[in-house]
Amino acid sequence: MNHETSRFAALISALQSRFGDRASTARPLREQHGKGESWHPIDAPDAVVFPQSTEEVAQIVALCAEHRTPIIPFGAGTSLEGQVNAVAGGICVDLSQMNKIVAVHVDDLDCTVQPGVMRKQLNAYLRDQGLFFPIDPGAECTIGGMVATRASGTNAVRYGTMRENVLGLTVVLPSGEVVKTGGRARKSAAGYDLTRLIVGSEGTLGIVTEITLRLFGISEATAAATVGFETVESAVDTVIAVIQSGISVARIELMDEVSVDAVNKFAKLNLPLKPTLFLEFHGSASGVKEQAEAVGEIASSNGGAEFVWADKTEDRTKLWEARHNAYYAGLALRPNAKGLVTDVCVPISALARCIAETKADLKACSMPAPLLGHVGDGNFHVCFIIDPGEPAELHEAERLHDRMVARAQAAGGTCTGEHGIGLGKKSHLASEAGAGVAVMKAIKAAIDPLGIMNPGKMF
Amino acid sequence: MNHETSRFAALISALQSRFGDRASTARPLREQHGKGESWHPIDAPDAVVFPQSTEEVAQIVALCAEHRTPIIPFGAGTSLEGQVNAVAGGICVDLSQMNKIVAVHVDDLDCTVQPGVMRKQLNAYLRDQGLFFPIDPGAECTIGGMVATRASGTNAVRYGTMRENVLGLTVVLPSGEVVKTGGRARKSAAGYDLTRLIVGSEGTLGIVTEITLRLFGISEATAAATVGFETVESAVDTVIAVIQSGISVARIELMDEVSVDAVNKFAKLNLPLKPTLFLEFHGSASGVKEQAEAVGEIASSNGGAEFVWADKTEDRTKLWEARHNAYYAGLALRPNAKGLVTDVCVPISALARCIAETKADLKACSMPAPLLGHVGDGNFHVCFIIDPGEPAELHEAERLHDRMVARAQAAGGTCTGEHGIGLGKKSHLASEAGAGVAVMKAIKAAIDPLGIMNPGKMF
Repeated sequence: MNHETSRFAALISALQSRFGDRASTARPLREQHGKGESWHPIDAPDAVVFPQSTEEVAQIVALCAEHRTPIIPFGAGTSLEGQVNAVAGGICVDLSQMNKIVAVHVDDLDCTVQPGVMRKQLNAYLRDQGLFFPIDPGAECTIGGMVATRASGTNAVRYGTMRENVLGLTVVLPSGEVVKTGGRARKSAAGYDLTRLIVGSEGTLGIVTEITLRLFGISEATAAATVGFETVESAVDTVIAVIQSGISVARIELMDEVSVDAVNKFAKLNLPLKPTLFLEFHGSASGVKEQAEAVGEIASSNGGAEFVWADKTEDRTKLWEARHNAYYAGLALRPNAKGLVTDVCVPISALARCIAETKADLKACSMPAPLLGHVGDGNFHVCFIIDPGEPAELHEAERLHDRMVARAQAAGGTCTGEHGIGLGKKSHLASEAGAGVAVMKAIKAAIDPLGIMNPGKMF
Repeated sequence: MNHETSRFAALISALQSRFGDRASTARPLREQHGKGESWHPIDAPDAVVFPQSTEEVAQIVALCAEHRTPIIPFGAGTSLEGQVNAVAGGICVDLSQMNKIVAVHVDDLDCTVQPGVMRKQLNAYLRDQGLFFPIDPGAECTIGGMVATRASGTNAVRYGTMRENVLGLTVVLPSGEVVKTGGRARKSAAGYDLTRLIVGSEGTLGIVTEITLRLFGISEATAAATVGFETVESAVDTVIAVIQSGISVARIELMDEVSVDAVNKFAKLNLPLKPTLFLEFHGSASGVKEQAEAVGEIASSNGGAEFVWADKTEDRTKLWEARHNAYYAGLALRPNAKGLVTDVCVPISALARCIAETKADLKACSMPAPLLGHVGDGNFHVCFIIDPGEPAELHEAERLHDRMVARAQAAGGTCTGEHGIGLGKKSHLASEAGAGVAVMKAIKAAIDPLGIMNPGKMF
């Protein structure tokens, strides 16, 4: 152990001599970097380093490789499955100082950013140029974190997820070597798709230091509305019919009555306490009108109320902020609560049944558990609002969560639409991917033979 | 060598006792399986086997692994970079008898098919259900082959490529083990994206035996038109403006005057001998009208002629068949010719310059060389119509091809938008992916340690 300790001291010393104040072992800083936003307890890293360039990341990684020390990439700390917990100790690489927008190519509808760029920062920067980046997981997260977890969110039903919208990456491999994947062409058939191998790899294959993203023009017209239903079933039936009819809605989000209650209180809204769809339409003025009318007819035939339109930009912003804060609104239902949040995704034909069976489970649940989701993709969440001091609640939430996952997998769906595996879903990945897990592990071993990149996650 | 020969005889004998007539060493059959549609000379495999199930594929692969013998997956033999050539001999696995449509889930807009299903077969099957599969590389190819090369084609500008439209796969690994990747959910954050690792891997990581695809509803209205321009530049400028304005055209294809001449002759059309855009619009009746008017204005402001509409379904079919047969139309320009066809893809802002510089090169070219492409993606082809008996022509075509690739890569583009690497572009992959090639090779070695899956391709 002494030997280990002196090796480790040598690494810390090397990092501090190279990075000065940007390499710290201060306990509060380490603890702050030891967890995301989920219920998982803190696993603090041994040090936190703040690089400012790809070269600096490569130097940190090479030093850690030399000392066989775990490396945990860190963005904004908003992950929900324990992805940033330093379960084996090691060096946290906080990328928040790499927050430059490197290039925007307006004519090509793409941009290149550093991983610490925040989603809202990017869109604020793009707005004047008439462009936006649609992927929108709600949390105020970094683009690098969104790459790591293959993030998605409210606009995915129309614009896709990080899988579809990352064109290329710069990645520091576990050896310290730098590779560029993909490029700026819209498509390529040149070799293995390393870009999509890294997207969703949760920091286990390398550290992403530059990201080239697809962008979209801000549409000529935008319209947003809410519509309440008497039952969750009729709301979900509306979603299914909209998707099956091919109407290209930009957003179609469900909140059950528990979620609506939570956001009413948190965001000071006055939505009727009913299962509610949040909708947004993008297109030309006439296209938006046509889409809204078609969806309105479907909603009405399923017993939906009149659309309540958010006409002004500020009303629309308020509406979507409320939706985005639903997780925090849920947490605010109980003092000092933590969230255990599930994230299943199923084929759309199975959505009504999966949600109905989940709601039946939740009726008997002893804690608040709002249900909401990106239902246009078949993706929905339940946030169990647990008291971390009550192990029985965690146990109950995990049991209901397991039932949701098993149901989704049996329907041909997945244990996670967008939150990833991290610490929380390792057993669910195993049941879902089967023999594929051995292939993933073989790839991991080939790229990270020392096993130093974010160890203990995913497998 | 005797030892090798007897090992090999034992393999053939095992295959024939297991598969009877479905394992053949007949020379004409082997030669027929020794090349795709490109200029590359035949490299015949030692035997051809026709499996009918995943289990049979797994048995063949396990036998070949036991005998350390190369395996070459084969679909319809339409690849353009030598992907099916048996450069190290071995066993060709012809998947044409695995041509069942396993399931169509109309409500989920997805289907599962065997790899030998043909693109047109699938769409004929889907039509009555109001659905279609948009990826459309022109050739009458198999879905399995399209997975292998990450195929794309005329509709990709709106619907994406195989990368975006494969939801899940069943794959026989080089060990003979069977894995399922992905699933039927629209999105997933569960582990490494093995689906997209296999898509585009050109049979070097395993044999795909089932494919789950996204489908789309046939749109309420469809309209197709051609429009001629005085110069290639003005046609390309039109495309760039259309893409940048965010109009969601379904197809926007360029043919230069040489291509138009070739298809006029081959398909008995009477298109004016001018650089021409082939367009298609999908949507609601009013949406199609709106799109067509917007594109018409852009074309007109770039000096385009009036749109010539293909109003009837049969006219539209004829138009697109002519476009799809452009490769064969080019070959028909010279008796006994072969095609060396390039396939670069660039950011749209670089498209006009790359095409102009290419056309300047082609002016001095001694052989016919039609230029055409899926220009909405920034993807374009030149088909050098070479006399295979004249090495000087191959040399000249390769020199001009190299210039096109270098130009595309310098612009942030790629050496291949959709044809893949195969034998023809190994050096171009190396220059494009750089250190990424070592990562690809490490993945290859991890999944195929014996190096038996389609050896000699890609690297």
